[in-house]
Amino acid sequence: MTRRSFLEGLGQIGGTSLLLAGMEAFGMGIASAQTAPPPLQGGGKGKKVIILGAGVAGLTSAYELGRAGYDVTVIEARSFAGGRSQTARKGFQLTELGGETQTCQFDDGYYINHGPWRIPFHHRSTLHYVKQFGIEVELFNNDNDNSYIYTTQGKGPLARKPLRKMEVAADARGNAAEILAKVTQSGALDKQFGADDKALFLEYLKTEGYLEGKDYAYRGTEGRGWISKPGAGLHPGVPSKPYAFTDVLDSGAWRVLASVSEWDQQRTMFQPKGGMYMIPTGFVTKGGVGDKIRFSTVVEKIRQNGRTVDVSVVDGTGQRSVVSGDYCICTIPLSVLKSIDNGLSAPKQTAMNGAAYAPVGKIGLQMKRRFWEENHWIYGGHIYTDDMDIVSVSLPSTGWLGPKGVLLGYYQFFANAAKVSALTHAQRTDFALSFGEKVFPEYRDSFETSFSVAWHRVKYNLGGWAMWSDESRARDYPVLLEPDDRIYLAGEHLSYIGGWQAGGIESAWMQIAALHKRASVA
Amino acid sequence: MTRRSFLEGLGQIGGTSLLLAGMEAFGMGIASAQTAPPPLQGGGKGKKVIILGAGVAGLTSAYELGRAGYDVTVIEARSFAGGRSQTARKGFQLTELGGETQTCQFDDGYYINHGPWRIPFHHRSTLHYVKQFGIEVELFNNDNDNSYIYTTQGKGPLARKPLRKMEVAADARGNAAEILAKVTQSGALDKQFGADDKALFLEYLKTEGYLEGKDYAYRGTEGRGWISKPGAGLHPGVPSKPYAFTDVLDSGAWRVLASVSEWDQQRTMFQPKGGMYMIPTGFVTKGGVGDKIRFSTVVEKIRQNGRTVDVSVVDGTGQRSVVSGDYCICTIPLSVLKSIDNGLSAPKQTAMNGAAYAPVGKIGLQMKRRFWEENHWIYGGHIYTDDMDIVSVSLPSTGWLGPKGVLLGYYQFFANAAKVSALTHAQRTDFALSFGEKVFPEYRDSFETSFSVAWHRVKYNLGGWAMWSDESRARDYPVLLEPDDRIYLAGEHLSYIGGWQAGGIESAWMQIAALHKRASVA
Repeated sequence: MTRRSFLEGLGQIGGTSLLLAGMEAFGMGIASAQTAPPPLQGGGKGKKVIILGAGVAGLTSAYELGRAGYDVTVIEARSFAGGRSQTARKGFQLTELGGETQTCQFDDGYYINHGPWRIPFHHRSTLHYVKQFGIEVELFNNDNDNSYIYTTQGKGPLARKPLRKMEVAADARGNAAEILAKVTQSGALDKQFGADDKALFLEYLKTEGYLEGKDYAYRGTEGRGWISKPGAGLHPGVPSKPYAFTDVLDSGAWRVLASVSEWDQQRTMFQPKGGMYMIPTGFVTKGGVGDKIRFSTVVEKIRQNGRTVDVSVVDGTGQRSVVSGDYCICTIPLSVLKSIDNGLSAPKQTAMNGAAYAPVGKIGLQMKRRFWEENHWIYGGHIYTDDMDIVSVSLPSTGWLGPKGVLLGYYQFFANAAKVSALTHAQRTDFALSFGEKVFPEYRDSFETSFSVAWHRVKYNLGGWAMWSDESRARDYPVLLEPDDRIYLAGEHLSYIGGWQAGGIESAWMQIAALHKRASVA
Repeated sequence: MTRRSFLEGLGQIGGTSLLLAGMEAFGMGIASAQTAPPPLQGGGKGKKVIILGAGVAGLTSAYELGRAGYDVTVIEARSFAGGRSQTARKGFQLTELGGETQTCQFDDGYYINHGPWRIPFHHRSTLHYVKQFGIEVELFNNDNDNSYIYTTQGKGPLARKPLRKMEVAADARGNAAEILAKVTQSGALDKQFGADDKALFLEYLKTEGYLEGKDYAYRGTEGRGWISKPGAGLHPGVPSKPYAFTDVLDSGAWRVLASVSEWDQQRTMFQPKGGMYMIPTGFVTKGGVGDKIRFSTVVEKIRQNGRTVDVSVVDGTGQRSVVSGDYCICTIPLSVLKSIDNGLSAPKQTAMNGAAYAPVGKIGLQMKRRFWEENHWIYGGHIYTDDMDIVSVSLPSTGWLGPKGVLLGYYQFFANAAKVSALTHAQRTDFALSFGEKVFPEYRDSFETSFSVAWHRVKYNLGGWAMWSDESRARDYPVLLEPDDRIYLAGEHLSYIGGWQAGGIESAWMQIAALHKRASVA
């Protein structure tokens, strides 16, 4: 029996937890490798490390290396830390390339996380620092069955109407379960199932689809909502009726359903109270990294000579200087790094071209009242649409029942993001309102002020995140994981958790471990 | 076309929102009747109303009638307001009938809501007061796909093992979708579907079940979890493999799955920060009802004479007195009221026997560390089991990533609750630990202190909530909705939202509206 087949057997018997226990028992340690920073004992103390970029990868590197006794300096082009982990709040400014400067006009206490905005339960690395720095988190509602689906491409009477997700889930699954139960009852699957399993399978379909009676009919369920909900006195409630299954199919609204959410999108998620910038703020204040950052300082040239790395920078006053160190961790996005005079070796230059950076657009809309809560009973979650210029409208998971709220008016990618980003900010706002008012009659009238971003037009990012094709992942990605003599690259782009803070943090953990190993020997 | 068929048509076309709009347009107002308190204009000012019980029904009555100018007095047997809306926290005391007195020993800041503990998004009435009194709420995680299912009655290799809900959901639905897709492909359903719908149906099954390829095979999905999750560097992740479908069926774990959750259990729920007692506290402090409550005062006799209602009470010092008023709202649970010398008419006496009260047990276990978060990555939600002496183990939706936590060790009903409640508190604790340690190896060692309740043994409740059979709902319930001359009954027992605070509130709204209508005429 191979180790692998043994482990697979464990998984079959006892699920993931037994499997992970088995892997730990074998010292495989895969589970734990990514949940805590690497131990950095001895050796490197006093060595100087220059860290380029104060996003979460840079902050992680600075914090952990600093704790291990390294002398770290962080060079950050912006006047604040966090990289893409930004929160647009009153006074926050953003200038897009070739675009206008926006100054966020949200009321005090309101914000939109226009970069990363949610932390899945399995992002152990991000949660490690949440705990480390005592950052207060709250649940992010990533899946709300009372939210709407609004299809624009569908056909039939249910297209272009706001449908509740619970209605669609109940009706699609209920009808499918009814059909399958009838097929099973007819004996057509008897070869497939033994008698015991057939009975269990029918029982499963009945439970799953709220099927009734001996004919296993789906006739609706209270879980899809009520025409009038049950109340006090003589108000038992008026049950809702299922939509015709053919109308549900034609609408396309079922496209949002899945047996279970994708791994990255599972529904137990967090967000820091007050905004995602609380994550970098944790590093800067509680973690003490703030003292080590040279803000508003732009990298112009990177060189190394086999003993030191020398980074030429220009600060906010226009003053030029050279920062030298024993090692460098460069967390600058590849989209930006490849345009800097970076002095990296030819294989690295080639490999950097293997990553494409995602055009991504978001807009926050401050609404003067929370009509989605008050009138539609939707508390957080997403309005789903197949209009790929919008993708989703997301309702805030904070400020419950309060006077105002900032919702996310769109979150589009790729060609759609490129298209929408060509609009002025005022046009983008109008575009977002034009969609939202199809779903919520109160949308446009409630609007007060907005803040938009097109990440591919943001100077020090030039894209939302790195994307690797299968080919470039195999050919270029491994090249960039290896140090270029004394320069180590890190960031979400060097992980399989692209576009998430966890990718940046875990990439930093990997590279500081490698750097430390070398520095300890040297 | 009847009004009803027109409305049904609206529902078919535009979903619940259009339907509700239509109902409002017709002045049917069903939707709004239950979302806000009734307007109480003019008329009754200065009239004296005695309210029996300071649970949420009594508090609602006192607050709204007080605002409308009535002179209200609330008689409450306990030394605090809230009725069943209690929160066990440091120093909280509870004595069960014939049982010991427990004094809660949880650390400061830790608690269990051993009465109502969650507020569904559609409990507009409860949320009305949350907003009115500025009570801070946070999401309650009622559905966590990363939590465990542990079956005790199932068979095969997956029974009596903690399985992740996401694994079971993916595998049950994935296999069912595969079977149905193959049946559909075979042409067996061609009579049922047109060619277009058949194609859409296959596409739906593919999406829903993560089916692959031309053979629509279910081979697992990342959403069911990873053997090793994706990380930085050369860690693309090790995908998990589906369980054998027959093992999933045999385990019985699929019993927790449903197309959509039941109406009362849908996943967007709230809880007040700090504990459910913040709801009554809102009425007492912000609502100003506190001044009107005579605490530790027990009702001994209720009489009326066509002009006044006279309630004989005994206070905490043993002093007896009679409180007289023009009207009375009696929110005492029927289980208790029927043993009081209540002077109600014979039909009411008979009708009161129509409600049975649910035996219900809960136990809070303070754990010295949050092993379910640290080791199992489960943040809130429920561990589901078919052991009906336990029903579920629920993990706290507050204090995320903190040092300790109080979890709910069981929540059983009816005969199971009666059985467990016969144990001493120490025995109940051991019983709860004996189950929990099957799921979590850390359970027993992490235990510090506990607090249990058996509601059927609590003096002023004698049960968790009222239960009506179809027969008694038709025969007895309407009798109790009608006033007994000047006495109006209210509480969750007089609603179709039994066992929820919303039932108590909406019942109070109904009865104060009726009382006011009469008082305005009189």
